[in-house]
Amino acid sequence: MKLAFLGLGNMGQPMARNLAAAKFDLIVWNRSPARADDVVKAGATAAPSVAEAARVDVALTMVADDAALEAIVFDGRLLETLPGGAIHVSMSTISVALAEKLAAAHAARGSAFVSAPVFGRPDAAAAGKLFIVAAGPSAALETCQPIFDALGQRTFRVGAEARLANLVKLSGNFLLASIIESLAEAFALVRKAGVDPHEYLELLTGTLFTAPLFRTYGTLMADRRYQPAGFRMRLGLKDVTLALDAARAATVPLPVASLVRDHMISALAQGRQDDDWSALAEIAARNAGL
Amino acid sequence: MKLAFLGLGNMGQPMARNLAAAKFDLIVWNRSPARADDVVKAGATAAPSVAEAARVDVALTMVADDAALEAIVFDGRLLETLPGGAIHVSMSTISVALAEKLAAAHAARGSAFVSAPVFGRPDAAAAGKLFIVAAGPSAALETCQPIFDALGQRTFRVGAEARLANLVKLSGNFLLASIIESLAEAFALVRKAGVDPHEYLELLTGTLFTAPLFRTYGTLMADRRYQPAGFRMRLGLKDVTLALDAARAATVPLPVASLVRDHMISALAQGRQDDDWSALAEIAARNAGL
Amino acid sequence: MKLAFLGLGNMGQPMARNLAAAKFDLIVWNRSPARADDVVKAGATAAPSVAEAARVDVALTMVADDAALEAIVFDGRLLETLPGGAIHVSMSTISVALAEKLAAAHAARGSAFVSAPVFGRPDAAAAGKLFIVAAGPSAALETCQPIFDALGQRTFRVGAEARLANLVKLSGNFLLASIIESLAEAFALVRKAGVDPHEYLELLTGTLFTAPLFRTYGTLMADRRYQPAGFRMRLGLKDVTLALDAARAATVPLPVASLVRDHMISALAQGRQDDDWSALAEIAARNAGL
Amino acid sequence: MKLAFLGLGNMGQPMARNLAAAKFDLIVWNRSPARADDVVKAGATAAPSVAEAARVDVALTMVADDAALEAIVFDGRLLETLPGGAIHVSMSTISVALAEKLAAAHAARGSAFVSAPVFGRPDAAAAGKLFIVAAGPSAALETCQPIFDALGQRTFRVGAEARLANLVKLSGNFLLASIIESLAEAFALVRKAGVDPHEYLELLTGTLFTAPLFRTYGTLMADRRYQPAGFRMRLGLKDVTLALDAARAATVPLPVASLVRDHMISALAQGRQDDDWSALAEIAARNAGL
Repeated sequence: MKLAFLGLGNMGQPMARNLAAAKFDLIVWNRSPARADDVVKAGATAAPSVAEAARVDVALTMVADDAALEAIVFDGRLLETLPGGAIHVSMSTISVALAEKLAAAHAARGSAFVSAPVFGRPDAAAAGKLFIVAAGPSAALETCQPIFDALGQRTFRVGAEARLANLVKLSGNFLLASIIESLAEAFALVRKAGVDPHEYLELLTGTLFTAPLFRTYGTLMADRRYQPAGFRMRLGLKDVTLALDAARAATVPLPVASLVRDHMISALAQGRQDDDWSALAEIAARNAGL
Repeated sequence: MKLAFLGLGNMGQPMARNLAAAKFDLIVWNRSPARADDVVKAGATAAPSVAEAARVDVALTMVADDAALEAIVFDGRLLETLPGGAIHVSMSTISVALAEKLAAAHAARGSAFVSAPVFGRPDAAAAGKLFIVAAGPSAALETCQPIFDALGQRTFRVGAEARLANLVKLSGNFLLASIIESLAEAFALVRKAGVDPHEYLELLTGTLFTAPLFRTYGTLMADRRYQPAGFRMRLGLKDVTLALDAARAATVPLPVASLVRDHMISALAQGRQDDDWSALAEIAARNAGL
Repeated sequence: MKLAFLGLGNMGQPMARNLAAAKFDLIVWNRSPARADDVVKAGATAAPSVAEAARVDVALTMVADDAALEAIVFDGRLLETLPGGAIHVSMSTISVALAEKLAAAHAARGSAFVSAPVFGRPDAAAAGKLFIVAAGPSAALETCQPIFDALGQRTFRVGAEARLANLVKLSGNFLLASIIESLAEAFALVRKAGVDPHEYLELLTGTLFTAPLFRTYGTLMADRRYQPAGFRMRLGLKDVTLALDAARAATVPLPVASLVRDHMISALAQGRQDDDWSALAEIAARNAGL
Repeated sequence: MKLAFLGLGNMGQPMARNLAAAKFDLIVWNRSPARADDVVKAGATAAPSVAEAARVDVALTMVADDAALEAIVFDGRLLETLPGGAIHVSMSTISVALAEKLAAAHAARGSAFVSAPVFGRPDAAAAGKLFIVAAGPSAALETCQPIFDALGQRTFRVGAEARLANLVKLSGNFLLASIIESLAEAFALVRKAGVDPHEYLELLTGTLFTAPLFRTYGTLMADRRYQPAGFRMRLGLKDVTLALDAARAATVPLPVASLVRDHMISALAQGRQDDDWSALAEIAARNAGL
């Protein structure tokens, strides 16, 4: 089985390296070619263009957003170069609408489309500890499973329609964002009342709020340190907007997402686009006059 | 050290029993006296009135709301009967404003007031596994520590002003309520899109949302079973309203709490006052046309 | 018919003067007695206490809030001094709950309670151009009509239960507040896009938004001038909170009121408690990074 | 001066007829040609295609949404057929983003782009009583003024950048939608409390809420009659979404618009897409358990 991996950013590079290390026959491509060096050292081949990387059994893409993926699939001709029967696995957090469009486009050409977005940050990608949410034709999912096993600690299959994986992934990012917003408001309240935020965090994480995410985001808020960003505010806004778009298409209101979106826009208006998205705590603090 | 325990409801009864079992010299009182039998069997004495229970070193109260506590303290004359130097420990989830009022009233009479609300449901109370959030004069907190050790698995001290314990406790209930609302919206979205809610819950709890609270509330939502209620919607509304009142007094907006409050009012308008508060999932489902 | 008028603030003083000018047999009282001079010159008598003003057929009250009215009715003994068969007309913007309490208290003593809050600012009060929203026993309303005719340009009767007048009045203040918030957001948007706010206001008031309220509040926003306050932010917050309380009691969510309340709290947190409530425009502007 | 009018829907048809009646040299086009008959009788010529209508000095378009306008401009080749120096006047409520794109596209080809969306329903269009919000190069606006005079009662110029007219128009629709939502909530409150909705409306329109829009929407709500729709819920949702998109691009949060959008989605989820947008009153009523 020949694989291609396109998109070697903060997430894609360690993922591709893991595939090379697992002895897959791997060709890689990135818009700025220097990012490939590391993966080539681990055993992969570098391709000078998308089209030259695309003559494979499975092509995996991991890019920043819808536009970057469309650039690869349409402008870069992944869609038309991929052989009949091959599989395109999109691992990026993209819109449900684009997933639907790509599923239809691949079906029309005799290739298969799998959506397999991930939960996890670059360190989890490097450790092969991602969580993978996969959807697509079941034969294609079977084929991809050994690949997923090399990339993540667990794969969840959520259906035969690729778009469902994106919907579920976006719903997860919505949940994260909404928890961050609620924590932000709680911190504003206790800080203004005179409670030490670090002691407050100990209490939260020592009682009911035991998932690591509470410690992760709570620490950033208690320290008021949003640089370097684990996940940038503007990407958070992008994902919450994608969740709202998907919900709109399904005729489902998401009032908490709407509220979070408004606060994220406010964060951008105050120059926090490159802060970690836990900087929502600063918006809540400001609204409280802190 | 002589103790009194006033209020033997679903929470108070097992708590008092644990104190009796721990060999504290204990007198108990409840509005409907029959609730005392069980605790008396475990070694406590029953008092026929608040005043007759109040000649102790430490009087603990555990009642439903502000009105019930005021009935004990003022109408029932706990305040005037409690000896100088004694301590009143309020373990109920009451308003920050009442905590301030009681702290002042006790200080004026030479007794001490400690707020020590708890996290945990009746089963945790029975197992002595509550989390206790305590605030008040530090000497009084020291005196109470052995009592807290018999009731809970861990005590968090959050300051010398009793009201801070109530504020922190209310902020915790606000966080719970807001997570329930966000989960409710996420379930509405994925259900309408055709994802199986139980599989979705497996995915959430298997990835980032690992705290038991996600499984607890997610299961109720996936099963759509809100009876019997672990925590009733109308009590949830009471607590979110108390959090908003405390935040208003501190001049802190809590937009997510406002939103949750509106949805809880809608739940009451639809007859769900005695459902578990996770029935917010039904409000989200209804708004999505499910 | 003997009248008393209690409460000679910015609204009450011109109202009482109009009653004196209309040749009603009038006795007045105010907490700070100097405010009575002007009305005495117009023909009224000043009473040194509430009780000495209360031996009348109709006692009108016009005070700042619930607490001030309770101080007159209970502490000042209006309730017990008022003769059997007499009428208490409360013209303040008070809570629905207090209206219910006063209606019951008066009924128990054989006097009648009428709620008759008003729309209009001090200049309208001086000109006898108030709008009066009245509710109460219909015989009492009949008796009061000549009084209302001396105070306002039109009286609307909304039922036999006094509380309905307060509910309707609060709903009106909620509508005003929500329009102010929406205007605030619209101004933030067009200002940030580079449209001149005064030209924008001309357009709004020249097309669909023709009621004087749009010009009144729009001008304050376009000028960014919130002093002197026509209606203070903190009183706006009080009224929106009363509307939310009344809606809560009726099990009706008011999501726009919740949102406005949050923004008003933010305004207070930023020191704008004594600005005109149209200073919500500055909160919207700030959230937009202006 | 030769004119073309493209798009003869409920708004476009009476507008084109007014231009014919005003003796402009007019050629018209509509996707379904039968709609042109009426205007032809009034003196216009019908063109069989966009391109054949486009050899004019000023081409006016009035269509349902962005997609319909792009179909005319790009697929239908209005852009490339319009002579150098000619003007395209877009009178539809379209996105700010499309206005920017069209302004750039026309500038690149030597034609001019004017945005001139309108306030007013079909009856105002028929009566030549529209309000026109115009923006674009000032020479082009001068040229168009006689056309606008034949279509509307007043033209407001809001700048040299066409997009500003769309932004202002969308802000106006946002204001309308937000007033409808607030009215909806107020009606839910007073109805549940037992106030007659028609009497309530008399009170509102007889006091502060005197603009015709309050009577228009208030009557629909008091009568609970949403058919036939003056403006459909789904078009309201489209416009509120466009306002939010424009605000997002300008980094301005519009919290009331977010809230209205959520309620409109709920209305669609309950099958009200073709009701008048004042059916938001039914969503508020339902949330109140009415």
